[in-house]
Amino acid sequence: MFKKICIIGCGLIGSSLARAIKENNLSNKIVSSNRSNVVNKKVVELNIVDDSSSDTAKMVKDSDLIVIATPLSSYKVVILKIKNSLKNGSILTDVGSVKSKVIPLVQKNVPKGVSWISSHPIAGTEESGPESGFSKLFKNRWCILTPSSQAKDTDVKLLETFWKKVGSKVDIMNAKQHDYILSITSHIPHLMAYNIVNTTLKIKKKKEQDVIKYSAGGLRDFTRIAASNPIMWRDIFIQNSENASKMIDEFIANLQDLKKAIKNKDEKKLEKVFTKTKKIRKEILKAGQDIEKPDFGRK
Amino acid sequence: MFKKICIIGCGLIGSSLARAIKENNLSNKIVSSNRSNVVNKKVVELNIVDDSSSDTAKMVKDSDLIVIATPLSSYKVVILKIKNSLKNGSILTDVGSVKSKVIPLVQKNVPKGVSWISSHPIAGTEESGPESGFSKLFKNRWCILTPSSQAKDTDVKLLETFWKKVGSKVDIMNAKQHDYILSITSHIPHLMAYNIVNTTLKIKKKKEQDVIKYSAGGLRDFTRIAASNPIMWRDIFIQNSENASKMIDEFIANLQDLKKAIKNKDEKKLEKVFTKTKKIRKEILKAGQDIEKPDFGRK
Repeated sequence: MFKKICIIGCGLIGSSLARAIKENNLSNKIVSSNRSNVVNKKVVELNIVDDSSSDTAKMVKDSDLIVIATPLSSYKVVILKIKNSLKNGSILTDVGSVKSKVIPLVQKNVPKGVSWISSHPIAGTEESGPESGFSKLFKNRWCILTPSSQAKDTDVKLLETFWKKVGSKVDIMNAKQHDYILSITSHIPHLMAYNIVNTTLKIKKKKEQDVIKYSAGGLRDFTRIAASNPIMWRDIFIQNSENASKMIDEFIANLQDLKKAIKNKDEKKLEKVFTKTKKIRKEILKAGQDIEKPDFGRK
Repeated sequence: MFKKICIIGCGLIGSSLARAIKENNLSNKIVSSNRSNVVNKKVVELNIVDDSSSDTAKMVKDSDLIVIATPLSSYKVVILKIKNSLKNGSILTDVGSVKSKVIPLVQKNVPKGVSWISSHPIAGTEESGPESGFSKLFKNRWCILTPSSQAKDTDVKLLETFWKKVGSKVDIMNAKQHDYILSITSHIPHLMAYNIVNTTLKIKKKKEQDVIKYSAGGLRDFTRIAASNPIMWRDIFIQNSENASKMIDEFIANLQDLKKAIKNKDEKKLEKVFTKTKKIRKEILKAGQDIEKPDFGRK
């Protein structure tokens, strides 16, 4: 499908993508660039990529597809490093979780003959680093494409086919809509998990309570999400701060409403809310977006 | 271990306990009582119990161990039904998630020769009903015992051994401490999940957004918890309303703090909080309270 692909940043997502590319024979050659030479050595040793170096411009040279898979806060440094090495006719993409601010930032540094098409594969685990990646990460997950104004239609089609070949389903969306919907389905849930765990840690410290022992009552689910990559999530909230702030307000208003019902022992209201929320789980299972086994199949 | 055990309410917890009792040969006879005759028929057909009837007093008769496994709001009705059928020297327990109010309520109706020792096995899934139960539900999970003032020490020891035989680890705690710690490790996480899903549903309705498709970004984890038994959770928040209200306030204060950091693009603060929360996951895994595989082992 491609002659050479370069992945910049072999973390969980980057290394999973590299593995999926190899497994599906989507490129003759696949290389990566990482700041750390320990990582560059490791990804070659593990046969995740064919070559890897901290010299990003060198790795990018002659690539048909370049994937930025580093934290959002590094995009500016990355694009300035590679802009003069991007091959005419190549496709530049990323895997970032927020779009509105980074798309124009990259756009203004990309040569005319390069199609800059932002990608967001909605997939991940709480683990980080090249060793945590696996080739099936994108299977059955949605990947949202947000093409820049300069991207060629044929390249958008090509990138769409690429994501489908690694197992994803593809949607095309503009940056504003993307950032809004992801604040609901991903960013706010993560923030709530971070906040529950943070609140718990504060209480644990102050009152010396053993919260670990009894975490199977619900807390443990949130600690999984709150163990996600801190740098990645710091950048997401900084980049999507307006949507996140608005959603936090809506969340607090609804929480105050539930608190009132709890204080007033309003059985009807609580039962109504708790019954309504049950339905969405079924829809998610029907859409194949989670496994059907109870308790995520944990035993 | 016992001659006859009666389980009142064969839902997820009750039927799992019945299965575990059979599997570990902990009683010569095991019976249950359910309001619905469809359920009474089913639990006998499925060989979960030896006999079952809606006549609770009749089922309880001659039992050495009686387990109330119905919603907290039904305890008063249940205890009034069975008080005159409780055998002298028997143990009465339950599996409820809140203690402070129900313990004295039951206590005042229990004959002197009966040891009323409240239990709380911290285990469950998002499913409900007798068919969703399984014998290993309590394995490696903590069970908290809260003996009433009248309970015999030898009976507390016996009940402790019983829970250990179905796979649990046992702690003894007073009602106040129990309700406080469980509000942190279980009740508040559930309320946050309900609130996220409820907020999402409101937005979905108003803005016609497809939140199902992109739920793998985090939301789906919360929908699992928000699919738990609505009646059970309604009762928990009514019964533990004071602790829950206080915790909601702490949660909102911390959330406002995070919102401020997001609005001010305070990278340091966000990174600090998100890094701190990562550690607790490791402690939970070390304590054997969740499975070690990333993403709960989902694939």
